[in-house]
Amino acid sequence: MKTILVVGIGTGSAEQLTVAAVAALNRADVLFVPEKGTPKADLADVRRTIIKRFVTRPEVRQIGYAVPRRDAGNPDYGQGVDDWHAMLAEIFSWLISDVPENGVGAFLVWGDPGLYDSTLRILARVPEPVRVEVVPGITAVQALTAAHGIALNRIGEPVLITTGRKLGPVETDTVVMLDGQQAFLRADPDLEIFWGAYLGSPDQLLISGRLGDVAVEIAATRDEARARHGWIMDTYLLRKAR
Amino acid sequence: MKTILVVGIGTGSAEQLTVAAVAALNRADVLFVPEKGTPKADLADVRRTIIKRFVTRPEVRQIGYAVPRRDAGNPDYGQGVDDWHAMLAEIFSWLISDVPENGVGAFLVWGDPGLYDSTLRILARVPEPVRVEVVPGITAVQALTAAHGIALNRIGEPVLITTGRKLGPVETDTVVMLDGQQAFLRADPDLEIFWGAYLGSPDQLLISGRLGDVAVEIAATRDEARARHGWIMDTYLLRKAR
Ligand SMILES: C[S@@+](CC[C@H](N)C(=O)[O-])C[C@H]1O[C@@H](n2cnc3c(N)ncnc32)[C@H](O)[C@@H]1O
Ligand SMILES: C[S@@+](CC[C@H](N)C(=O)[O-])C[C@H]1O[C@@H](n2cnc3c(N)ncnc32)[C@H](O)[C@@H]1O
Repeated sequence: MKTILVVGIGTGSAEQLTVAAVAALNRADVLFVPEKGTPKADLADVRRTIIKRFVTRPEVRQIGYAVPRRDAGNPDYGQGVDDWHAMLAEIFSWLISDVPENGVGAFLVWGDPGLYDSTLRILARVPEPVRVEVVPGITAVQALTAAHGIALNRIGEPVLITTGRKLGPVETDTVVMLDGQQAFLRADPDLEIFWGAYLGSPDQLLISGRLGDVAVEIAATRDEARARHGWIMDTYLLRKAR
Repeated sequence: MKTILVVGIGTGSAEQLTVAAVAALNRADVLFVPEKGTPKADLADVRRTIIKRFVTRPEVRQIGYAVPRRDAGNPDYGQGVDDWHAMLAEIFSWLISDVPENGVGAFLVWGDPGLYDSTLRILARVPEPVRVEVVPGITAVQALTAAHGIALNRIGEPVLITTGRKLGPVETDTVVMLDGQQAFLRADPDLEIFWGAYLGSPDQLLISGRLGDVAVEIAATRDEARARHGWIMDTYLLRKAR
């Protein structure tokens, strides 16, 4: 059987890779590298740097593949995602067919493969039975709290991780990811926010304070940075002030 | 001013260290190594392995310190934690006084310094002003989902991270940590559980299934393993079956 490694690479720079991830990439006969279909050239750069700097097997093959765009126009969100995963499963099948018998292929996944990432779900749809191994990576959540020098949770208290789409009234301390709609603009201005974009990278941006005092600055910084980079990824923690 | 690095070391083996964490440990003039006060000899072993394997500065100093026990008998949980942090802040002050002027000291923190860890809060109580830098590490949450080969969240759905003490009825997919009381035994038997102990280490234990079918097996495995090791750390994900 073939082995497919799903390797978390962290969320900003090659140095976020773990020693276990470096070892995993060096077990691979084939590395699958997403290309195009995304304006996020800087992310592709991080992947290339990682491979150049840490992959020492001279005979390793790199196979690039285009990532199709999800049909965001589909009014049924679940169906849109399902169709997109079906397309990706076909691409993954084709990629895996290039792994030698009993060989090892590896996907490089942004952050951790467990957090808002579909690689594992898509692999589960590939008809050829393969052995999947997951190597954890640093998430945007850890990159956010490290950059702000704060703990994620209050002492013994829970934390909710959610998306911009699902953000409701903040009772529990809440991390928001995947927020294309700037959901923080609708939240209680008396909350504290710890916001970060391009976390872990040289372009990292950080803003924190009382939401009502900094929301406009965050929105402006966000727009300006997105225009400059052509893309943005940001994450933030909202919590009641003490 | 002195710089204090708070370095996440992952939750099981030396290989979980990131390349950035290795670099950080090699910036330190002094490494602070918790000793005694904990029966968790295996954890001390991981720290020693990390230092031996990755710290290459020959002149680095290691300073061991005893970790006092929190007074679990204090009926006021908040006050008990506060007293304990005050004691630790005194110890940290004393450790930091050993860092040369403008030098660098480093704490090695289990998992990620942001998740259910008090190092940052205790450092904030140290009277001497210091510059604190945090280096993220792999958490038990990532170690859990990687070991089970699952995603933490359902597509676009939130996840709650909480403690055994705070676990209530499970509406949202929920990760439970710091569970001394086996809170899963009181949860809805129709939930799915993904349980793991000693995650990321050679002693890793994994059990998953319908809670009602595996709860007794988890409790027995847990007791047996704790008796054998003298300690246990376990984490689990609870979610409604689909
Ligand atoms: C599809 S999810 C992938 C998350 C990733 N698997 C992880 O572990 O962090 C993408 C979201 O992660 C967050 N994100 C990822 N990288 C980030 C970064 N460098 N800075 C800020 N947020 C980031 C953003 O909220 C973004 O919308
Ligand atoms: C004080 S918290 C520290 C968490 C750590 N900072 C992290 O990032 O995972 C200790 C709790 O973390 C979880 N934990 C830590 N290491 C673990 C491991 N190797 N296996 C299972 N659970 C672990 C357990 O729930 C334990 O009660």
